[in-house]
Amino acid sequence: MADDTIRSADVIEADHARVLHSWSAQGSLPPFEIAGGSGCELWDHDGNRYLDFSSQLVFTNMGHGHPRIVEAIAQQAKQLATIAPATANATRAKAARLVLERAPQGFEKVFFSNGGADANENAMRMARLVTGRDKIVSRYRSYHGNTGASIVATGDWRRSSNEYARGHVHVFGPYLYRSEFWATSVEEECERALHHLERVIQAEGPETVAGILLETIPGTAGVMMPPPGYLPGVREIADRYGIVLILDEVMAGFGRTGEWLSLDAYDVRPDLVTFAKGVNSGYVPVGGVMVDGRIAHEFDERVFPGGLTYSGHPLAAAAIVGNLEAMAEEKAVENAATIGRDHLGPALEALADKHDAVGEVRGTGVFWAVELVADRDTREPLAAAKIGAIKKACQERGVVVFPSANRIHMVPPCIVTPDEVARAVDALDAALAAL
Amino acid sequence: MADDTIRSADVIEADHARVLHSWSAQGSLPPFEIAGGSGCELWDHDGNRYLDFSSQLVFTNMGHGHPRIVEAIAQQAKQLATIAPATANATRAKAARLVLERAPQGFEKVFFSNGGADANENAMRMARLVTGRDKIVSRYRSYHGNTGASIVATGDWRRSSNEYARGHVHVFGPYLYRSEFWATSVEEECERALHHLERVIQAEGPETVAGILLETIPGTAGVMMPPPGYLPGVREIADRYGIVLILDEVMAGFGRTGEWLSLDAYDVRPDLVTFAKGVNSGYVPVGGVMVDGRIAHEFDERVFPGGLTYSGHPLAAAAIVGNLEAMAEEKAVENAATIGRDHLGPALEALADKHDAVGEVRGTGVFWAVELVADRDTREPLAAAKIGAIKKACQERGVVVFPSANRIHMVPPCIVTPDEVARAVDALDAALAAL
Repeated sequence: MADDTIRSADVIEADHARVLHSWSAQGSLPPFEIAGGSGCELWDHDGNRYLDFSSQLVFTNMGHGHPRIVEAIAQQAKQLATIAPATANATRAKAARLVLERAPQGFEKVFFSNGGADANENAMRMARLVTGRDKIVSRYRSYHGNTGASIVATGDWRRSSNEYARGHVHVFGPYLYRSEFWATSVEEECERALHHLERVIQAEGPETVAGILLETIPGTAGVMMPPPGYLPGVREIADRYGIVLILDEVMAGFGRTGEWLSLDAYDVRPDLVTFAKGVNSGYVPVGGVMVDGRIAHEFDERVFPGGLTYSGHPLAAAAIVGNLEAMAEEKAVENAATIGRDHLGPALEALADKHDAVGEVRGTGVFWAVELVADRDTREPLAAAKIGAIKKACQERGVVVFPSANRIHMVPPCIVTPDEVARAVDALDAALAAL
Repeated sequence: MADDTIRSADVIEADHARVLHSWSAQGSLPPFEIAGGSGCELWDHDGNRYLDFSSQLVFTNMGHGHPRIVEAIAQQAKQLATIAPATANATRAKAARLVLERAPQGFEKVFFSNGGADANENAMRMARLVTGRDKIVSRYRSYHGNTGASIVATGDWRRSSNEYARGHVHVFGPYLYRSEFWATSVEEECERALHHLERVIQAEGPETVAGILLETIPGTAGVMMPPPGYLPGVREIADRYGIVLILDEVMAGFGRTGEWLSLDAYDVRPDLVTFAKGVNSGYVPVGGVMVDGRIAHEFDERVFPGGLTYSGHPLAAAAIVGNLEAMAEEKAVENAATIGRDHLGPALEALADKHDAVGEVRGTGVFWAVELVADRDTREPLAAAKIGAIKKACQERGVVVFPSANRIHMVPPCIVTPDEVARAVDALDAALAAL
């Protein structure tokens, strides 16, 4: 395949022939091929264009081809693409400073990883080491990554085929639309979810629990906004039993919710915060753990037994610097908040009024889930085939959405415009009408 | 700290203040700061220059600042830095093709990860899924990565503080200098190591063993060259019990041993090969699994339940393409072989004749360990403080080496010249003389 005669079908065939793709059976072809992108738009080699309301796997927060991030990568590649983790590097130090400027008060250090999974691995490692305890409590309906320990902390189907680690306990979290606590109000759901969490910790033995690991707002599992009192209540339980509280901001962090970190909207101060994706819009693989000073200093004299070859990779750090500076200057976080409040949120709510298949719309900023049901009364999830059909119908109208279980997630870059929102919601509207 | 007035001490201070470094206590400052590099040379902001005989963590196989890789990264960043794993991409497909051209006959697909640890995670996952068995046998004195399952497969001190997974069994491997089998010849060591491996598998229950995971040549653990018959013997044992054989080429692969893959020097055909580091000289974080066709097709109809957000990342793929094309055109693999045979190997052997502290010199290509002892008869390892002093003395002479346990590893980029070898070995010679 010569580089100057590229056709989309050839790329799809070449990729399919030699690449084993994640989370899928390999018998069918990849759905499309992408050659380039700019802002919220993507195109293939045949010239087809798509509006990206998936942000890929919810990570291109500053959109595609952002010139400032591209330039930061090119410059750093020229100066010094890579260096070992133990050696100091100016770009890495600057990236750490910019990340910590967005962290809760009193957070002092960053441990860099290659992505969200190993960020959570290292956060759990820190929790286990500083407490001397073993268990990690996380929730059902969650996703924390697919390495050996991370996957067992996960709360969906990807866990059961990967249970290679021990010491993981799962609880139910607040999700009023499908309450596990027979609750009938937000307040009741919150109170009962906290009671359930504490009872599980008591039953497991609080002296065996190292950490509580929660996505601030569970993402792939359904953008389930926590009731206002839930996270402060979790903090109280953690304090009561000397447990480390880890908030996973891998998907929700860095602008997606219309805040720098999604936890900024809640009255909660965790001990560790994990991140990846939005921190550099995924232009170079990277993730990390923001570490409270108290935990960071536990490792002043004691070796931290975690690490990976590319921890603090200069090229990834350059992309963080470019991304966070661009995000601040272009007020992308503020834009995400406005889009959610004035455009995307109201437009999706309008769809709920119009289509019986919409059971619930949840979200904030550029982080929305449209939960689809076969029956509004029983709340029976819409069948997978119909979700697939909606995704395909949107794609035929030039809009890429993010399907997950019985939901369509509408998760564009933070820089999305009101016009783009209107186009995307129109496509979803038409796809729902065609059901 | 303004970008135009950077001093090394400021960078070291800024990095130390905010970055939690891997595998270390955080109380002491990073040993140095690096601003840029070219080929085998590195420099800091104060203008100090170093000859890099560590290849950082043994990964910059094409050296620093290679213009072709830098350009490939800059171009790809401009065209399309990132895309979701499920979408086909031309650069990724090309990277997969170039990797598979170096794989054993019959290997058909590549699963891309972010580094070596998650490459091994996914290889173990495949072995477990296709066999329906749970256990992984690996060896003591090994390193396979630091995620939850990978770390428990590891055979050094980094394992015991991270044992969060189950189903891992460790055996001793061939290492005549410190034989665990009371062997007195290479042949005896080989035969007994194979007997020991088979006995452990029989005792564990062969029907419970999914995979055997071995570094073709254990790297950080000491560059222990397998006896010629060992890997073919392991293959026979794996076949006898229906076990998947995974060879870890993360450190030894892509030129380091003077072969494209280090397994090319042995008469062995594994089922899975893991890689990272040298495949793109670490310019962008990436790793992966080369998959035999038989295993790849097991997932044609069945979902492969592994994945990560940045699997098949276009920017990482571009760096693979640039690196492998440059490596082929510049005959870097051939250079590594020549350097090992005619320059670095003989020069290190000469040090062994000269200094009583040298117990054994092992290696090939640009992959050498100098094992240091307090006493040649008892083979008592040289104390850690003395290894630290040797590293420091080399550094003062402008040469960065790679210390590991009681060894100094001499592991320059594959493009190293005979003159650079002479300078580095002179520095090590002087450092040993100063002991």
